[in-house]
Amino acid sequence: MAESLVDEILERNKNFAVAHRPYRFFSESQGQKRPSILIITCLDLRCNPEEFFSLLPGDAAILRVGGGRVAPLIAQIISLDCFLGSLKEIMVIHHTDCGATHMTEKRIHDHVLKEDGVTIEDATQLVLPFITDLEQSVRDDVKLLKTSRIIRRELRDHASGYLYDVKSGLVRRV
Amino acid sequence: MAESLVDEILERNKNFAVAHRPYRFFSESQGQKRPSILIITCLDLRCNPEEFFSLLPGDAAILRVGGGRVAPLIAQIISLDCFLGSLKEIMVIHHTDCGATHMTEKRIHDHVLKEDGVTIEDATQLVLPFITDLEQSVRDDVKLLKTSRIIRRELRDHASGYLYDVKSGLVRRV
Repeated sequence: MAESLVDEILERNKNFAVAHRPYRFFSESQGQKRPSILIITCLDLRCNPEEFFSLLPGDAAILRVGGGRVAPLIAQIISLDCFLGSLKEIMVIHHTDCGATHMTEKRIHDHVLKEDGVTIEDATQLVLPFITDLEQSVRDDVKLLKTSRIIRRELRDHASGYLYDVKSGLVRRV
Repeated sequence: MAESLVDEILERNKNFAVAHRPYRFFSESQGQKRPSILIITCLDLRCNPEEFFSLLPGDAAILRVGGGRVAPLIAQIISLDCFLGSLKEIMVIHHTDCGATHMTEKRIHDHVLKEDGVTIEDATQLVLPFITDLEQSVRDDVKLLKTSRIIRRELRDHASGYLYDVKSGLVRRV
């Protein structure tokens, strides 16, 4: 019996590797389809774009962070765009019942202020993945993309926002 | 025929939704297993921890960004820890042939400097997901977690680093 879940999943990895088919390196994948869409969404298991869009490999690059908020991802978007060289559009997708709608700034600040040596200045500098209004968070994040100076013009112009309903499974444009 | 891939995948979503089984809201999921591990890794399709660790729902929360670099994720880690209340360990996992090892700072800076009004100061402020040495990037990111003042002590103490080999499928501790 493994001591912790980490030990246990490392054991599972050994079993997985036995039947693993080696992935190709980039250098061996010339001519392979590259994604034209960048999807920014939440890490929530219920909000899985591969599932709800029936994505095929190479359709989209996907960044998943808390709430699917754009602010911490600007450098990521730029690096991906530069590396892939194939992106044309960005979709921002938030979802119903997101954890970010259940949190308050105060609760997270109180959480970090329990640690030794953390000041209120440290806490207020955090860019936290809050959402108070789901449609507004999508609009704000699309606006953040569209008004960026540093993201490539084509992506700014083709940024759009959506809300995914974890009950109905439907994605609708905001 | 859809005009763009975005239109096409929105059509696919309608088909998906027909057979979609509604997910439960947090308020309907009392007593459900909550993740004890936070996994930080790359968005690369070949580097899928659900797959290589045979994860079950509720085993782990997973943040996937370019290169699996920790620096842009500090606020995310704190929010998740506060929201979930169940985390005990953090695993940082980088992988062979990562896109972040194929990029240079200069290439990304040149990329953004093509946009109107972007200065070299704008470019150098970006925290880019580079990797020059895969073992070193893992060690650096684990160190960043362990020396954080603001992340909860238990998580700092239980932060560990790994390298995933996309050829063999094996994860080894760094």
